[in-house]
Amino acid sequence: MLDKTDLKDTQQYLQEVNKALESGMFVLARSIIEKMPACDVALLLESSPPANRKVLWNLTDHDQQGEILEELNEDAKDGIISLMDAANLVAVTEGMDTDDLAYVLRGIPDSLYQAVLEQMDAQDRHRVETAFAYPEDTAGSTMSTDTITLRADVSIDVVLRYLRLKGELPEATDALYVVDSTDHLIGEVPLSTLLTVDPSLSVAQVMNTKTGSIFAEMPELEVAKLFERHDWISAPVVDHDNQLLGRITIDDVVDIIRENAEHSMMGMAGMDDDEDTFAPILPSAKRRTVWLALNLVAAFIAASVSNMFEATLEQMATLAVLMTIVPSMGGIAGNQTLALVIRGLAVGHIGNSNTRWLIGKEAAIGLLNGMVWAIFVAVAVVIWKGDITLGIIIAGAMFINLLVAGIAGVTIPLIMHKYKIDPALAGGMALMTVTDVVGLFSFLGMATLVLRY
Amino acid sequence: MLDKTDLKDTQQYLQEVNKALESGMFVLARSIIEKMPACDVALLLESSPPANRKVLWNLTDHDQQGEILEELNEDAKDGIISLMDAANLVAVTEGMDTDDLAYVLRGIPDSLYQAVLEQMDAQDRHRVETAFAYPEDTAGSTMSTDTITLRADVSIDVVLRYLRLKGELPEATDALYVVDSTDHLIGEVPLSTLLTVDPSLSVAQVMNTKTGSIFAEMPELEVAKLFERHDWISAPVVDHDNQLLGRITIDDVVDIIRENAEHSMMGMAGMDDDEDTFAPILPSAKRRTVWLALNLVAAFIAASVSNMFEATLEQMATLAVLMTIVPSMGGIAGNQTLALVIRGLAVGHIGNSNTRWLIGKEAAIGLLNGMVWAIFVAVAVVIWKGDITLGIIIAGAMFINLLVAGIAGVTIPLIMHKYKIDPALAGGMALMTVTDVVGLFSFLGMATLVLRY
Repeated sequence: MLDKTDLKDTQQYLQEVNKALESGMFVLARSIIEKMPACDVALLLESSPPANRKVLWNLTDHDQQGEILEELNEDAKDGIISLMDAANLVAVTEGMDTDDLAYVLRGIPDSLYQAVLEQMDAQDRHRVETAFAYPEDTAGSTMSTDTITLRADVSIDVVLRYLRLKGELPEATDALYVVDSTDHLIGEVPLSTLLTVDPSLSVAQVMNTKTGSIFAEMPELEVAKLFERHDWISAPVVDHDNQLLGRITIDDVVDIIRENAEHSMMGMAGMDDDEDTFAPILPSAKRRTVWLALNLVAAFIAASVSNMFEATLEQMATLAVLMTIVPSMGGIAGNQTLALVIRGLAVGHIGNSNTRWLIGKEAAIGLLNGMVWAIFVAVAVVIWKGDITLGIIIAGAMFINLLVAGIAGVTIPLIMHKYKIDPALAGGMALMTVTDVVGLFSFLGMATLVLRY
Repeated sequence: MLDKTDLKDTQQYLQEVNKALESGMFVLARSIIEKMPACDVALLLESSPPANRKVLWNLTDHDQQGEILEELNEDAKDGIISLMDAANLVAVTEGMDTDDLAYVLRGIPDSLYQAVLEQMDAQDRHRVETAFAYPEDTAGSTMSTDTITLRADVSIDVVLRYLRLKGELPEATDALYVVDSTDHLIGEVPLSTLLTVDPSLSVAQVMNTKTGSIFAEMPELEVAKLFERHDWISAPVVDHDNQLLGRITIDDVVDIIRENAEHSMMGMAGMDDDEDTFAPILPSAKRRTVWLALNLVAAFIAASVSNMFEATLEQMATLAVLMTIVPSMGGIAGNQTLALVIRGLAVGHIGNSNTRWLIGKEAAIGLLNGMVWAIFVAVAVVIWKGDITLGIIIAGAMFINLLVAGIAGVTIPLIMHKYKIDPALAGGMALMTVTDVVGLFSFLGMATLVLRY
């Protein structure tokens, strides 16, 4: 091999297409798009403003449209589907595997869904029903039903002849599954075993009966953990009666892992991980508004703390100048701890056995950093404002707030986790409110006491 | 299958071991640990405070220690290795594959490294040298050298007989590589092909010459993108002369993807993604200090803005009470945009062709949200403080700051990306400084103007 031009860089494709479109050369754009793999066309659509997506979609190859839809993120996919009618959707999803069907058709309007079902042939309708039999984000909705099964009593030689007759294996097949006469899973035979054992042996003699299987109802995050833990390439999915339903392959799991990690990152910034980078302005603004509303409440809570000390602030405006420093440091320190705990919870590092130790550790770090930064900030304030009392007050507030930040940074996400609230979503806002309130209260409170006596 | 007890849940193992340890039943703990898969022992070590790790390590099975080290995160691994001497390390790493060797030995002290090399046999020493021939985080340091190669002119029948003689394939093998007499890669034969084609054909007739290969110097993030894009299970690694060096498998790529996503999440909170949840207090405190130091500078910059308006604040303490609201809203809005852009850059959605559109979109959202929240905050302030002028001032400042936040939220990470600064690390702090300064300046500035005239 390997003709490197076949592996053209995605960015290169995008540039070529965009250049062609800008100069109005639609025929050229179409011919480039036709040469691109489906995943790159999906990326091209995702990287384009909504208005351009319609134009681009009309330039795509009809035979590739199903594959492109599978690869698109949810927002972009729904946008494209809103341009299609039922006949169109039926044509595009024909013969699609169940997990992809479930993804593409989830969330389309009811009337369209009914029309699509009516126009589908019996086999595809059955696939759709299987796909929607399991809730979103479970193994059942992620599995593909395209598996090869064997009986235990046949010889490997027979299996090999059968495979040669078949001529092709489903994508990402690394093992064949062994079932009994009523489809109960009893073992698996990896392809590597088929290739290395004596062909006169029977399937029963070489099959692996100790590997794991996945219940269809298992949440997909658990599925991803099992894959990571056991370095699986694929795994069989069964119902509670141990009947084989399908299989999950690593490429789907990779998507789950990436989405989950993005969820934490985006969630901490108050964004939905499904948020399309190029979503239209109005829906984007609306979605972000919830978070801003919550923050406004938090900001007013902080302001009401300063309000308690309005008389003090009136007496000494320098306090107003300095009062934002302590809450800001507390917010940063608390956020560090929060990120650590959110990741620890996601990876499974944090359980009942070690939370107390973790709280102790983060409190100790808060104590230590509190002392260090208390001294620094005191020195800075004394130099700047020439007021030693002020330096002592801000040092005390800093120490208290960093200690509180460390403790709250562990306890807030743990409590949320216990009550099934996602700490990646709600943790940051709650924590910031705590560090703002404590920071302002300790700084202005001490200042008030000192000024009064 | 499937004896479910063999697939005991990780958390269950951890609880059992911790219970045994707490009651001092070390023999029981050892017997549980011996039954655990290496990945779970690694998780157990990672989930334990550093002091307990030493105890636990001494309870692990010697034959499993190499595998456990491979699975540990960097901090925990280095901690365990610091308990070992050269003879110990040589024993544990014996026969380890190059990518794992590179991981385990990277970062150990030079003197220990020399001692280990001296005590190793020639084959292992060669592996170490191969492992360190490529810089960290490149395909070369991630690849395994355990591959099966074929010649193009032999028949599939011969290959099948060879594999049966061999009896076992390297882990996660989904394809065999075809090389010429000087080890140049010329194609690959997937296992599924071996199983489905006519055995009398030659390798040359069935091999796939159109699949991709990876240069050893390619950064591992690029490698991960290629795997995701093409749904690969494994891929060959070559040098610039197209000589086969090894292969990369999907399980390593899964780690890369997870680490990279964690990097963004942790980075935005000012944490290193290698940070061990249970790292000792002193090093943790030290590592977080850099971020706190930067934030102190940022906080003093913000304070110096308020300082410019000290006279105004003295005149009207209510301004001090309200002045934190606008910067806080700007910080949140900007951070939403920042997270979106950081993800877009990571996924490859953002390129030259669409940055202008994106800036326009985020500015429009800032404008829209700015108007909405300007009205809200104005109403709230008028009701609270009964001062219409104050309401108008804060509304103006809010509008300006949310608009600036939207624009800065796109432009700051894009500029950083251009100059190869990681926006996930530095973006948040820079952005917050901008929104703090603009928020305070516009609010206090307008108030000063109004009060003066």
